[in-house]
Amino acid sequence: MEFQFNSQLLEKAVAELSKLPGVGRKTALRLALHLLRQDEEEAVALGESIIGMRKNISYCHRCHNISEEETCPICNDKKREQDSVCVVENVKDVITIEATRQHHGLYHVLGGLIAPLDGIGPADLEIESLVKRVKEEKIKEIILALSPTIEGDTTNFYIYRKLSDLPVRITILARGLSVGNELEYADELTLGKSIQNRILFSDTFSP
Amino acid sequence: MEFQFNSQLLEKAVAELSKLPGVGRKTALRLALHLLRQDEEEAVALGESIIGMRKNISYCHRCHNISEEETCPICNDKKREQDSVCVVENVKDVITIEATRQHHGLYHVLGGLIAPLDGIGPADLEIESLVKRVKEEKIKEIILALSPTIEGDTTNFYIYRKLSDLPVRITILARGLSVGNELEYADELTLGKSIQNRILFSDTFSP
Repeated sequence: MEFQFNSQLLEKAVAELSKLPGVGRKTALRLALHLLRQDEEEAVALGESIIGMRKNISYCHRCHNISEEETCPICNDKKREQDSVCVVENVKDVITIEATRQHHGLYHVLGGLIAPLDGIGPADLEIESLVKRVKEEKIKEIILALSPTIEGDTTNFYIYRKLSDLPVRITILARGLSVGNELEYADELTLGKSIQNRILFSDTFSP
Repeated sequence: MEFQFNSQLLEKAVAELSKLPGVGRKTALRLALHLLRQDEEEAVALGESIIGMRKNISYCHRCHNISEEETCPICNDKKREQDSVCVVENVKDVITIEATRQHHGLYHVLGGLIAPLDGIGPADLEIESLVKRVKEEKIKEIILALSPTIEGDTTNFYIYRKLSDLPVRITILARGLSVGNELEYADELTLGKSIQNRILFSDTFSP
């Protein structure tokens, strides 16, 4: 059904809202009409929080996590183990792993996984910068915390080969996770255990 | 899972997004991270469209539909039938009925339905203003286009009694089979109504 709106402003808001992932035109209209029913301050707070977030959050120069400063609070936290780096696919995975409170080191956000079918190769990811960090920062352990999928395994193996000549211990999360599921859907306890029980990547090659 | 964010700005945006209906904290985080990945202009356009809409859209003084001016474009359209008023529950219903292109008159938005269990009585709705319009505007027909629910029927009957002394024709939308649905899936009540209200087959031939 092609909806005709009574107002260009409503039309514009619906158009913008329906660009959000998982939000169709009908849902966007429902959200817009909800916002019209709220107090003006509520809708303004939402709009301003989106603008403020997008304008002022960028990426940490060191670990590529989101950050309001040049380096992020995790990298700047001297109480964290500076020689243990957890490699994750994206920003959301940092938040998910932080919630388990099982990792006390730093992070390195790849920005994706190697996926040749989607045209994503190693050069599109923060892998060279990881190798550079391992060489320069006296890192003792790299914890590969990627999703247990084909793309995750491919990326794990690529990173492993890139780092295998360097004096660094490379571990992956214990496969207590159900294979084929995305990391973000794992429950907190399972994810926590899988950090505690991480194993040597080379030990996973045995038949 | 209690998420700790790295950024107050992200925290704020997630908090605001999760106030939207049907959006939990996890979905809000997904939306916020999506917006962070977009070009800055995209996120700013969304935020500004929400603020602009909320600040500049109010309600038509005549029909209570949303409007950027004191009276809405539908009320101002002199080509529309000024003596036929379709009574609807909310703004969304105006949009839905407009999409059918079958109503050429004006509207009156009640702002809800009589629902004693939810504490909504006639005084909370735009019923007095409807009665006033019927008295002052030479309205010939009131089309009650409320949902065929207990609340809709209650509201229909309340309005009918309020208007019964006035020289106005009061109609409701036909209750019958949904176009395109199998007969066997129609509920008994609807099917019964559609038999009572059967129409001449030859009347359906008109263009």
